[in-house]
Amino acid sequence: MKSLIPQFVTDDIIKRALFEDINYIDVATDFLIPEDSFSTAKFVSKDDGIICGIDIALRVFEILDNSVTSQIFINDGEPCKKGDIIAEVSGLTRTLLKGERTSLNLLQHMSGIASAVQEYQDICDKTGKNCVVAETRKTLPGLRAIEKYAVLAGGGRNHRFNLSDAAMIKDNHIDAYGSITGAVNALREKIGHMTKIEVEVRDIKELKEALSLNVDVIMLDNMTTAQMKECVEITAGNAILEASGNITAERVKEIAETGVNIISVGAITHSVKAFDISLKIQKS
Amino acid sequence: MKSLIPQFVTDDIIKRALFEDINYIDVATDFLIPEDSFSTAKFVSKDDGIICGIDIALRVFEILDNSVTSQIFINDGEPCKKGDIIAEVSGLTRTLLKGERTSLNLLQHMSGIASAVQEYQDICDKTGKNCVVAETRKTLPGLRAIEKYAVLAGGGRNHRFNLSDAAMIKDNHIDAYGSITGAVNALREKIGHMTKIEVEVRDIKELKEALSLNVDVIMLDNMTTAQMKECVEITAGNAILEASGNITAERVKEIAETGVNIISVGAITHSVKAFDISLKIQKS
Amino acid sequence: MKSLIPQFVTDDIIKRALFEDINYIDVATDFLIPEDSFSTAKFVSKDDGIICGIDIALRVFEILDNSVTSQIFINDGEPCKKGDIIAEVSGLTRTLLKGERTSLNLLQHMSGIASAVQEYQDICDKTGKNCVVAETRKTLPGLRAIEKYAVLAGGGRNHRFNLSDAAMIKDNHIDAYGSITGAVNALREKIGHMTKIEVEVRDIKELKEALSLNVDVIMLDNMTTAQMKECVEITAGNAILEASGNITAERVKEIAETGVNIISVGAITHSVKAFDISLKIQKS
Amino acid sequence: MKSLIPQFVTDDIIKRALFEDINYIDVATDFLIPEDSFSTAKFVSKDDGIICGIDIALRVFEILDNSVTSQIFINDGEPCKKGDIIAEVSGLTRTLLKGERTSLNLLQHMSGIASAVQEYQDICDKTGKNCVVAETRKTLPGLRAIEKYAVLAGGGRNHRFNLSDAAMIKDNHIDAYGSITGAVNALREKIGHMTKIEVEVRDIKELKEALSLNVDVIMLDNMTTAQMKECVEITAGNAILEASGNITAERVKEIAETGVNIISVGAITHSVKAFDISLKIQKS
Amino acid sequence: MKSLIPQFVTDDIIKRALFEDINYIDVATDFLIPEDSFSTAKFVSKDDGIICGIDIALRVFEILDNSVTSQIFINDGEPCKKGDIIAEVSGLTRTLLKGERTSLNLLQHMSGIASAVQEYQDICDKTGKNCVVAETRKTLPGLRAIEKYAVLAGGGRNHRFNLSDAAMIKDNHIDAYGSITGAVNALREKIGHMTKIEVEVRDIKELKEALSLNVDVIMLDNMTTAQMKECVEITAGNAILEASGNITAERVKEIAETGVNIISVGAITHSVKAFDISLKIQKS
Amino acid sequence: MKSLIPQFVTDDIIKRALFEDINYIDVATDFLIPEDSFSTAKFVSKDDGIICGIDIALRVFEILDNSVTSQIFINDGEPCKKGDIIAEVSGLTRTLLKGERTSLNLLQHMSGIASAVQEYQDICDKTGKNCVVAETRKTLPGLRAIEKYAVLAGGGRNHRFNLSDAAMIKDNHIDAYGSITGAVNALREKIGHMTKIEVEVRDIKELKEALSLNVDVIMLDNMTTAQMKECVEITAGNAILEASGNITAERVKEIAETGVNIISVGAITHSVKAFDISLKIQKS
Repeated sequence: MKSLIPQFVTDDIIKRALFEDINYIDVATDFLIPEDSFSTAKFVSKDDGIICGIDIALRVFEILDNSVTSQIFINDGEPCKKGDIIAEVSGLTRTLLKGERTSLNLLQHMSGIASAVQEYQDICDKTGKNCVVAETRKTLPGLRAIEKYAVLAGGGRNHRFNLSDAAMIKDNHIDAYGSITGAVNALREKIGHMTKIEVEVRDIKELKEALSLNVDVIMLDNMTTAQMKECVEITAGNAILEASGNITAERVKEIAETGVNIISVGAITHSVKAFDISLKIQKS
Repeated sequence: MKSLIPQFVTDDIIKRALFEDINYIDVATDFLIPEDSFSTAKFVSKDDGIICGIDIALRVFEILDNSVTSQIFINDGEPCKKGDIIAEVSGLTRTLLKGERTSLNLLQHMSGIASAVQEYQDICDKTGKNCVVAETRKTLPGLRAIEKYAVLAGGGRNHRFNLSDAAMIKDNHIDAYGSITGAVNALREKIGHMTKIEVEVRDIKELKEALSLNVDVIMLDNMTTAQMKECVEITAGNAILEASGNITAERVKEIAETGVNIISVGAITHSVKAFDISLKIQKS
Repeated sequence: MKSLIPQFVTDDIIKRALFEDINYIDVATDFLIPEDSFSTAKFVSKDDGIICGIDIALRVFEILDNSVTSQIFINDGEPCKKGDIIAEVSGLTRTLLKGERTSLNLLQHMSGIASAVQEYQDICDKTGKNCVVAETRKTLPGLRAIEKYAVLAGGGRNHRFNLSDAAMIKDNHIDAYGSITGAVNALREKIGHMTKIEVEVRDIKELKEALSLNVDVIMLDNMTTAQMKECVEITAGNAILEASGNITAERVKEIAETGVNIISVGAITHSVKAFDISLKIQKS
Repeated sequence: MKSLIPQFVTDDIIKRALFEDINYIDVATDFLIPEDSFSTAKFVSKDDGIICGIDIALRVFEILDNSVTSQIFINDGEPCKKGDIIAEVSGLTRTLLKGERTSLNLLQHMSGIASAVQEYQDICDKTGKNCVVAETRKTLPGLRAIEKYAVLAGGGRNHRFNLSDAAMIKDNHIDAYGSITGAVNALREKIGHMTKIEVEVRDIKELKEALSLNVDVIMLDNMTTAQMKECVEITAGNAILEASGNITAERVKEIAETGVNIISVGAITHSVKAFDISLKIQKS
Repeated sequence: MKSLIPQFVTDDIIKRALFEDINYIDVATDFLIPEDSFSTAKFVSKDDGIICGIDIALRVFEILDNSVTSQIFINDGEPCKKGDIIAEVSGLTRTLLKGERTSLNLLQHMSGIASAVQEYQDICDKTGKNCVVAETRKTLPGLRAIEKYAVLAGGGRNHRFNLSDAAMIKDNHIDAYGSITGAVNALREKIGHMTKIEVEVRDIKELKEALSLNVDVIMLDNMTTAQMKECVEITAGNAILEASGNITAERVKEIAETGVNIISVGAITHSVKAFDISLKIQKS
Repeated sequence: MKSLIPQFVTDDIIKRALFEDINYIDVATDFLIPEDSFSTAKFVSKDDGIICGIDIALRVFEILDNSVTSQIFINDGEPCKKGDIIAEVSGLTRTLLKGERTSLNLLQHMSGIASAVQEYQDICDKTGKNCVVAETRKTLPGLRAIEKYAVLAGGGRNHRFNLSDAAMIKDNHIDAYGSITGAVNALREKIGHMTKIEVEVRDIKELKEALSLNVDVIMLDNMTTAQMKECVEITAGNAILEASGNITAERVKEIAETGVNIISVGAITHSVKAFDISLKIQKS
């Protein structure tokens, strides 16, 4: 797929990143590479996984110099194998060298997320259950939009974007009202009709209380797999169930098998491994 | 230590992160928590490592509401154990709930880096060699300054900040002049007297050429430990040697023992694990 | 209530507005008013309605000069009568004169919205039906957050904030799938579990199709009051119904009486009358 | 006419507005409309009036995706009738749907102002007097430039832009010097030679004092029509007279007939009705 | 006097300047000066002239760390002698060292302008004629506001701020209408009543044409002193006359003696000498 | 040469400067010049020197209206004579008139610096010594990048960009450790391997101490020519020597002849004379 986030939004992220990397000139490149030297660079995958961010990675060069041309061979959301050429960009050698690191930093981070998500989602899919992987709000500062987009590219689904667009009722909120029921009713007095309500529950008693209130989503917080299974049975499809807390690649299979609808994982954004990609620049 | 980056610079990072998380209001908190409810929150470590970013994490709350008060128990660069209380912040419950995630996202990422660096640096230190861990330019877009500062907090040293402040001569630059000698001489015709020159070498022949040019730093690119050892002997202290490429925690010890001066590691910024910290908020 | 939007967000709106009004100095005030002249200014209501934006209006002066002091007599969301003093601010006369217009422009626009909303909501409330007034996305460029907050202050509820946080399926989306059913099913393959789906319907047939799909909200687009009534009966509480299109103050009562849950009105943001408030500045 | 404000200035307003409306992706459009679906959209007037902002409205789509093409049928400042097609834009369906609301919000607000101004100016023109309608500084925060431009499009003239570019001497300024004469003389000691001075007067005595000082413009503050008439006679063309305060559409004719030169009206910016325009998008 | 430009505007200029000077940490200061070392710094004049920018210069330190304290001995617009202490600031030694250069760069540039203006204005004043020095639009990019303010501090007056707030009719405008008369009349059909019109004339014939049109200001472009004298006589006080073009310190006296009202000088902003000031920092 | 600073960075400087000059419309040009009038403008040098900033000067017009076309005859770093045409730009007359002043302000300042540097460097070159002119951090706020680039265009070399990228040890740093040796050793415990260390010395004793520490660069602070000569002899090529403080055009020759490597001059940025260039606009 093509990048879904509006370009003027990602341009802002790119410019900030580029300015970190060149606050004046590129002393090696500007002093050594002839002004009119022209090259072609290939993005080569050094691992197997899912690509994400290639439009954005190429846009880095366009922002430096809009005369570059490029071609994409593997689009966002598509799988790549070690050795695959993901895309190719041609332009002034100086432009390619100046944009290289920023371009790769974006592409490797986003592809790292997409690949991790795809790995988790794949485990879910193999259980035959209709279980979906989602990210959390544990994203890296300033990168939430592109990280969430990478989750989509990896085949996952998005959780709420932020505190403004959906309500998650947690202990501190519940404490203010003495009970889940109190909090949910209070919230319903004020919340808009387009905003979902999720309630965090820690045991069966709380689950039942939340179910009785017909909330949209119930989060099973740090439960054992056995507890989750029981929750699924009790819920019987009357609410969306989200498993959250200490989700590791190892546990994904058994959690998916419990029948929960969503598994939300912080690690796919806050602790992800960069996907290994290199840029081979050759003078033409 | 106290955060070294000017506050107006980190404020900008914080505001961007906060705005990602609240582009309007916090629907759960603003609709449920009484306006005048007051709480105290404790940052509790859930792992062993090095803390970094606590000033910045607390600043998140101040930016939301400058009436909060706070106390730090573990400063940037100091070790913490699982269960330790890192800091405490008191203020309106709404403020604490709104800032919680952004604050933790920053603190966990920075502490994750500091802890990883400290782990690598510790291995180096135990070899008794004077070997130093440094980051690379493989940083997450928009976060370079705070990531480099986290490297310092972890006991590492900083590499160049960007393409503008030091010159790294790589293959593409060398190719333009036919030889390392050609490139170095060309660069010396133009570069400022306060800018260091590093040359990337791939074998002993290139090392010797670089040494003959008296460059400031020589990067040993993707060499085996044995090759590095030979390089150290040949160099005999006449240049700073930096080992780079495929550095894993496992190899750090043997690389440090070769006698290289610097080990630069991309993974400590681009693939770091968030440090586990939670915020316990209690109504006072 | 106190302003709910984070202060750093509204500060940005204020600074933009102030800079429009003073891009250099205030030639009359800076050349005529003595540097140390000190005054007190009172915000006096010249109409009956609901106040909104008083924290923001006072913040204008603080941004110009943080030594001002102020006191609020009528908070956001509270009613005021012609002649009431809403708040008082004391500081350098120069500061008060420089901030006056920007402060009033914000306060009058926000109070204008709150008052209009309250008027509509009051009509609904008097019907004894549980019908709620909401804004649309027809907001003035750059002012959406403060306009939506003014809707809350007026006793209304918020619709979705934007295109990212909830899905409204309109004709163009439906056309791409041949039917509401096609579009809803396609969307459910991809949309996150925290995102509501609303479908726009133009007749009873479409309503029934939407109902059969259990969508969260159904928008009755430009229907007559009679049609709405029929829709309410058919829906029988199985979906939230939103009346939209050509809603005027005159029609609100009869629409509310149909039993729809939400009446969304563009005019309360895009065509609202400024609430008349003046600032009386007196040298102390 | 073509938009007179530099494009990089209006681009900033557009991007802010677009980002309010899409802080991530358009969940309905991005998940439902095929990536390569192409459409044409027509801006259709649903009322009679004066168009303003069509370049800016079309620019919204270009900022989202610079491959759109468009054609304008009714330029800024030109009249349109209900049913008229104002412009047409072709591009990816996703782009058209994402930009629709922001584009219309700008166009409807600006055309609303232009149409209101034209209505007032028309009344003035019919009196045969050389009386001109101008806006005030009561503009919506962040929108002053485009609102003032809309006044021009409607056939009005612009008042000063802000506090920096012309001096208006009001009571608080006069009080500091004990008299209009004192204040004007003090100001003339410091003000630049390219800056006009306007004095606010409330009665004939003050008018005569201002006239004796040869100030550039005199504002007749909240006067009755009879008073204005007397002021015009006394002034006898020796200063520009501006009528201000409580100007309604009803009073414009009689005020214009008094012979004042300028009628400044806050309502044409702070309380204007959006001009009704719709965008018809059709898949091509 | 105290700085007249709103602080949030100058803060923006300061932050941009500071970020140029510290995009990460201050490697010498942060690595060498103890965290809690405290010092006092004195701004010492090394020349005679007029001070401008001291509030802004001190604000630099506050932006870095709001715990600094300071005292001003010579305010903006006041004369200083070589050796005078202008102000004193106390705070963390790190803060003082980090802000030193940015603070001085602002203060020296602004004081350089104020001193140059004062020198020119002094020459004018000694002629006994009522002639005033003004700047032009030949200001340094990004610094116009603080440069114009420095002109005021030096005892000069401000010309128009920019192209938006006053009209200067030049050859290209006149060419479009065939004559000054044509251009002035065309402009009067559209321009606002608060905007002055200045016409550039090159000879007596053009002067007479401009005079016959009652324009506000007439610019005598690149005239000899004799020509200017003749223009003053012909004008006989019926318009403000501005001498412009090739104004040097040497010519100011004779030009002022001709009786022109304004002498506008590009050199006082575009080619000004920094005023020599040093900051003496002493550990307390 | 072509401009080396990334275009998105200089675009930001240009937009800020343009917005200072047109915060709304150009009242003379927009009201007088026909919408479709087309002209060609030539940048004509009125002095002899070195051109710098022509790409940026032309970019000003592109930012206003991307349909302009242009041709450069004298590139950055190339000499020009009085009367030479530097470049030509064609486009709408309105665009050319609106961009004229901002374009010239940038070009004249940058060319002023390049020309001053070239003059100093030329004097050095004629001594036959290998002495290089460099700028200092005494740059005008917000313009450091383009000023440093102008130094390169003038044939000079760049000093460090800022406090973050190289360490200059000054008295205050030395005082904290009691000696140069103490400070240098302390710094070496923390500083990165890519960061140069310069030490400021005031006499032979300090020079010898610095030399014994093998620091990269030694700054001879405010020394007489005789002292510098002695320093050069003692140093014997074992460190780079930089002469700084009170460098005037008159002294450059004798300083260069001492054999120091670098002469750093504040005046080439903080007190530079604008290079005289005019823009001749002719309707085509």
